[in-house]
Amino acid sequence: MQSGRFIALEGGEGTGKSTQSRLLADALRERGHEVVTTREPGGTPGAEAIRALLLDPPGEGWGPRAEALLFAAARSDHVEALIRPALAQGAWVVCDRFVDSSRAYQGGAGGLEDEAISRLHAFGSEGLRPDCTILLECGEDQLAQRLARRDGDSSDAIGGRPIAYHRAVAQSFRDLAEADPEGFRIVDGSGSPDEVHARIMAALGRLLGETP
Amino acid sequence: MQSGRFIALEGGEGTGKSTQSRLLADALRERGHEVVTTREPGGTPGAEAIRALLLDPPGEGWGPRAEALLFAAARSDHVEALIRPALAQGAWVVCDRFVDSSRAYQGGAGGLEDEAISRLHAFGSEGLRPDCTILLECGEDQLAQRLARRDGDSSDAIGGRPIAYHRAVAQSFRDLAEADPEGFRIVDGSGSPDEVHARIMAALGRLLGETP
Repeated sequence: MQSGRFIALEGGEGTGKSTQSRLLADALRERGHEVVTTREPGGTPGAEAIRALLLDPPGEGWGPRAEALLFAAARSDHVEALIRPALAQGAWVVCDRFVDSSRAYQGGAGGLEDEAISRLHAFGSEGLRPDCTILLECGEDQLAQRLARRDGDSSDAIGGRPIAYHRAVAQSFRDLAEADPEGFRIVDGSGSPDEVHARIMAALGRLLGETP
Repeated sequence: MQSGRFIALEGGEGTGKSTQSRLLADALRERGHEVVTTREPGGTPGAEAIRALLLDPPGEGWGPRAEALLFAAARSDHVEALIRPALAQGAWVVCDRFVDSSRAYQGGAGGLEDEAISRLHAFGSEGLRPDCTILLECGEDQLAQRLARRDGDSSDAIGGRPIAYHRAVAQSFRDLAEADPEGFRIVDGSGSPDEVHARIMAALGRLLGETP
């Protein structure tokens, strides 16, 4: 049996990753693939428990290094208990965030060295990379609107950081994608969910066995 | 003000580390030192929350790599939020377990490379080492008795592992101590708590400013 494919959706807060994960999974199922949708941090009981500690820290909040170690621990459990077994069974895995979120949030925007984040990933998850990473981007206007809306909500320990941090996250994602044009597809996240979904399907053309 | 001193107590399950931590702290206070007693995994609200996940894992239990990352995350929080500030204020820190427990349990007995554990510690806690590590040892008889007693208790995810694992932990601690005679003092943990305490005080002689 052919091994499955692993697709990660990346991007800042509110770029539509979870909506697009659902639409992508539906489209893949229509093409006859078995599909597992999941998210990070989380996806397994252990990793979801770590997620709760990350988004609502006990005490005075995590330092950047403890935070990076917790993300790597959650990812290790997620890869070992869910992603690798699903791929081995031939399923397609669609994951809302993966290691490039650690590289953008804790690395580029958080000040930790990219190499250190990658070493944690090598240790915890044998450096597993998606077959394709879709980077959903939205403009500065959309970011500002989103963060303004957020002020009325209860925001978590990471989403609730200042706008400068979220700008640095967006820039860091862009830098990672430009450094790895084989692994990434940058997709414009503006417009209706169906419009964005069509762009994602076009961007995945080759992986789906279609001429681009 | 002089920086404080950092003393770790190490050893397998039931070697008397927590009793001896208390007796040592009392003796140091009698000599006029400010003393902070703490333990791993734990010691801060964040690290205690991670401890709960380690000892009672959600789901099917952690893989060795996720477990090592969780220990390193807990230690990072503990070092940054409690141990380093206490040492900077001139306190003596007495800690029930530290990084050498990760090296013995997840490394030597758990099959992970010692260098990998040390790299996690370098990343999370800048490689902080105790000024002195007391290794409490007990004989094979005491280990067997202790594990037999344990079967009647509710044992946690790590203490509840098979006797072969605990033997490997004890051997690994011994190997670490023999490889670093400057950093370790091996102390016989048999006899009454007062007898063991007297051995620890003698072993610490030089650190306490007394002729050995």
